[in-house]
Amino acid sequence: MEKLDKVAFKIGVLTMGEERSPLEQDRLNFQPPLPQILSDISNIYLTEGGPTSAAGDVEMLQGHFPNTFGRPAVNFEQGASAASHHPLRIGVVLSGGQAAGGHNVITGLYDAMQKLHPDSQLFGFVGGPSGIVEKKYVQLTQELLANYRNMGGFDLIGSGRAKIETDQQLTACMEIVQFLNLDGLVNIGGDDSNTNTAVLAEHFLSNGCQTKVIGVPKTIDGDLKNHKIEISFGFDTAAKTYSEMIGNIARDAFSAKKYYHFIRLMGRSASHIALECALQTHPNITLIGEEVAAKKMTFEQISNEIADVIATRSAAGKDYGIVLIPEGLIGFVPEMKQLMKELNFLLAKEATESVANQLSRAAKTTFYFLPEAIQKQLLLDRDPHGNVQVSHIETERLLIHAVKEKLQQRVDYKGKFRALKHFFGYEGRSGFPSNFDATYAYALGNVAVVLVNSGMTGYMTSVTNLAQPVQEWEAGGIPITMLMKMEERKGRLTPVIQISLVDLEGEPFARFASQREKWAIEDHYRYPGPIQFSPESIADQLTLTLQLEGQAKVTKSV
Amino acid sequence: MEKLDKVAFKIGVLTMGEERSPLEQDRLNFQPPLPQILSDISNIYLTEGGPTSAAGDVEMLQGHFPNTFGRPAVNFEQGASAASHHPLRIGVVLSGGQAAGGHNVITGLYDAMQKLHPDSQLFGFVGGPSGIVEKKYVQLTQELLANYRNMGGFDLIGSGRAKIETDQQLTACMEIVQFLNLDGLVNIGGDDSNTNTAVLAEHFLSNGCQTKVIGVPKTIDGDLKNHKIEISFGFDTAAKTYSEMIGNIARDAFSAKKYYHFIRLMGRSASHIALECALQTHPNITLIGEEVAAKKMTFEQISNEIADVIATRSAAGKDYGIVLIPEGLIGFVPEMKQLMKELNFLLAKEATESVANQLSRAAKTTFYFLPEAIQKQLLLDRDPHGNVQVSHIETERLLIHAVKEKLQQRVDYKGKFRALKHFFGYEGRSGFPSNFDATYAYALGNVAVVLVNSGMTGYMTSVTNLAQPVQEWEAGGIPITMLMKMEERKGRLTPVIQISLVDLEGEPFARFASQREKWAIEDHYRYPGPIQFSPESIADQLTLTLQLEGQAKVTKSV
Repeated sequence: MEKLDKVAFKIGVLTMGEERSPLEQDRLNFQPPLPQILSDISNIYLTEGGPTSAAGDVEMLQGHFPNTFGRPAVNFEQGASAASHHPLRIGVVLSGGQAAGGHNVITGLYDAMQKLHPDSQLFGFVGGPSGIVEKKYVQLTQELLANYRNMGGFDLIGSGRAKIETDQQLTACMEIVQFLNLDGLVNIGGDDSNTNTAVLAEHFLSNGCQTKVIGVPKTIDGDLKNHKIEISFGFDTAAKTYSEMIGNIARDAFSAKKYYHFIRLMGRSASHIALECALQTHPNITLIGEEVAAKKMTFEQISNEIADVIATRSAAGKDYGIVLIPEGLIGFVPEMKQLMKELNFLLAKEATESVANQLSRAAKTTFYFLPEAIQKQLLLDRDPHGNVQVSHIETERLLIHAVKEKLQQRVDYKGKFRALKHFFGYEGRSGFPSNFDATYAYALGNVAVVLVNSGMTGYMTSVTNLAQPVQEWEAGGIPITMLMKMEERKGRLTPVIQISLVDLEGEPFARFASQREKWAIEDHYRYPGPIQFSPESIADQLTLTLQLEGQAKVTKSV
Repeated sequence: MEKLDKVAFKIGVLTMGEERSPLEQDRLNFQPPLPQILSDISNIYLTEGGPTSAAGDVEMLQGHFPNTFGRPAVNFEQGASAASHHPLRIGVVLSGGQAAGGHNVITGLYDAMQKLHPDSQLFGFVGGPSGIVEKKYVQLTQELLANYRNMGGFDLIGSGRAKIETDQQLTACMEIVQFLNLDGLVNIGGDDSNTNTAVLAEHFLSNGCQTKVIGVPKTIDGDLKNHKIEISFGFDTAAKTYSEMIGNIARDAFSAKKYYHFIRLMGRSASHIALECALQTHPNITLIGEEVAAKKMTFEQISNEIADVIATRSAAGKDYGIVLIPEGLIGFVPEMKQLMKELNFLLAKEATESVANQLSRAAKTTFYFLPEAIQKQLLLDRDPHGNVQVSHIETERLLIHAVKEKLQQRVDYKGKFRALKHFFGYEGRSGFPSNFDATYAYALGNVAVVLVNSGMTGYMTSVTNLAQPVQEWEAGGIPITMLMKMEERKGRLTPVIQISLVDLEGEPFARFASQREKWAIEDHYRYPGPIQFSPESIADQLTLTLQLEGQAKVTKSV
């Protein structure tokens, strides 16, 4: 066992007050408010709903999770708890990409554990799930956490993307949680990472290990949700940070009247981020991957639709504008999806540039339609699993290239098409969490403690009613298997969490769809500005996605 | 005369409250505080210093500006004014690229004029200096300005980069200011744009036109300054916006420990923005153009120095980091400067790719050292004057390419160099002005009114003592010729305003230089976070450049 007494030497630096910015110092002192239901943590009992199912492939999932499948969702109620009040021992791990609020889940865990019993101990596994397997951990103390309250980033204990799959890995995990005598292991992660949560929960339970495993929904993509997980933490801060930049650029474009700005936004597959940013900033064009897929649009059609708007605007004397592109767009275009599938398959066997010749006729056509730089990227820039690095493909460059060609073909187009490209990603993951994310993540940490203390395992924390004031938020948990289905990964059927795509029938998309024609031709840019932490009237604004979904729910239940 | 009753149809939209973000609505209601000296605008008199000189070429400048050269700097004092209190008529124009605060100069003008006399009238020339020549203007009313108070962008009346040079242009300008019977014409612009101010002032004065011409220092680059112009407006907001993003990315890099982020920052030639961002965020490496020039560094040397830091960090287990690159870097590297000079010369005669063959031997070597994409950019991507578009050159890509090669040549380097590139520019120009920029720009507008009303012409507004509380700010004006020298432009000697580069002996650079070795190897990232507008303790922080220069001045004067 490698116990790391110093997680990162940054800690030494942070004690030097003068190195901190004024806002950093201020945020360290912010105390996130707790929902009423979590205000007295030792006085909560759980009520159970009926048994749950899965997102698909029920029988196969039952086979994979014989002990944890089908359990009921649980709700927290205030009242005498049956749970014991002995000191708790919990391990926590951060999985996957950063999302603002990660450190607050950890402080939420710590504070709730301390309230339950002052001798409770919290351990952090270092560098993500591999830290569990490799038994690298550090004890997280009040003193240490004082430097991370309401801070961005995952630097306290780091993160990682390791999958826990093999027997050896599972055994190693069980050894360390038993060595540390953990009551609970809390995994903060997105859809992929929380498969680990479900697998570990099942493994521990079926092998008589007492450690409960709880997942916390994290991802800036906003694609890990259902009726009990209204949003993952990190989405709010990311969408607001991108919206600040888009609004600034829109005002610049509207002032200079010279450039089209093609802005690609991070978000692996779903287009929630792009949709929220569109609702916040009213760009002229926003591509929504899910709609592109539903309409089975080709790249050529997309380029033509963009060129249409540009030509119409130009005829009205406007040779400037804003185009938002979700990072995952490319995976929604059927022809590109096919091309990538073939490339992934071919390159797995032989990683040379000559594989392009082995593509099917349709895929080859798509491939050679792309600018050379993108072709190279597809062939050479691959992730450790050998897959195309979608986040590295400059879709904005590709679209500018294609749109330019389309415009050149139009005899009636007399405008000047000057385009600039932007990519916003990393900027939005590690900033100071917004008040919402700071408060929500802190509540999720508290909820995880209650679930562990109540003996639940294989559950994900759930805090709902988020569109209402914090005091009225509700809390509980849902079995992770409820979100799962089977999918082919690396050639074999594997349990995965089904991600939640943009609902083309949902309220946020409907609002967008009802406005976009106006936004395309007229200019209705909206300027959200930088995230504020006070006053509350500005700082505590929810994302429009959450507001509209919240309204829709209220309307439905009336 | 084309009087435009509708400046932009955006105005119609803005009356729809629901289109505004909460912060937008809040900022519209912010009332910038005024310095004590400007609190009673009708009760100010001017004191004169001694005659002034120029930045160089005194005799030639005297020839160009026989009536306006050498006039004294003036300071404002509280007391009975000799100026008349008749209704004022002023025209205003925005020149060059956006900078946060532009609209506040205009509201500052308007409010001060109204205080002097409620029948005063303000006119905005549309689309920059060409709006004066083409006689396109709009009357700016209380109602109209209510939608632009403390707003970013230049969209109220637009901006432009037209130079006013020919007799015909000068005559047209005089016609419109006389038609409108203007007491003053206020030109809000950077170094290039304010040459127009000086030229118009001289022309009007020598032709018996009563209109006074006043310049207001605007530029995010921070390179328009001297002892009476401590900073231009827009620098504060831009530097803080970039610092927010850099800090976020630094925290992300420090958490993921996977990537080097090469971040290029807007700022045409001087490296003030990069230096301020470095002081705010403590990146591992920051290139300062002025130092590169002073040390006569080649691209190869720069690449080697970066590779040294990366190799040292890698040996300590750190394969991640932050590198800041000022946009103007390329112009400071002697070999690149030479190459661009030759290319500009050759391409002016013959705009084909074959000119590369006609380069001098040294320039050819530099040219073919560059990656192909950059070579193409140099040959093809040129501004309307035929010059290389420095802002479009992806220096960050160039450096990543060169550093990668250097690292591959090192036998002792075993690290993984994975680099991502970013460019921050437009994001920082048009955001909501920070409290500092909103207040400073508003004060500058007030000062311009006092200068016009006192009969000064060819002056630039000056507000000093900025490192002290707003109440203690001082005000006055300096003759623009004081900042000028002669420079070859398009083959002939022309009066220009000398820009202020980073002073390698100054306090901001000294602070940076004393810390950078520590920042390079250890990790001392600092996270400024998004611009806040309240509370004052956070919102009203000055740039470190201004703080350090302010301290230096106090120390010197003691």
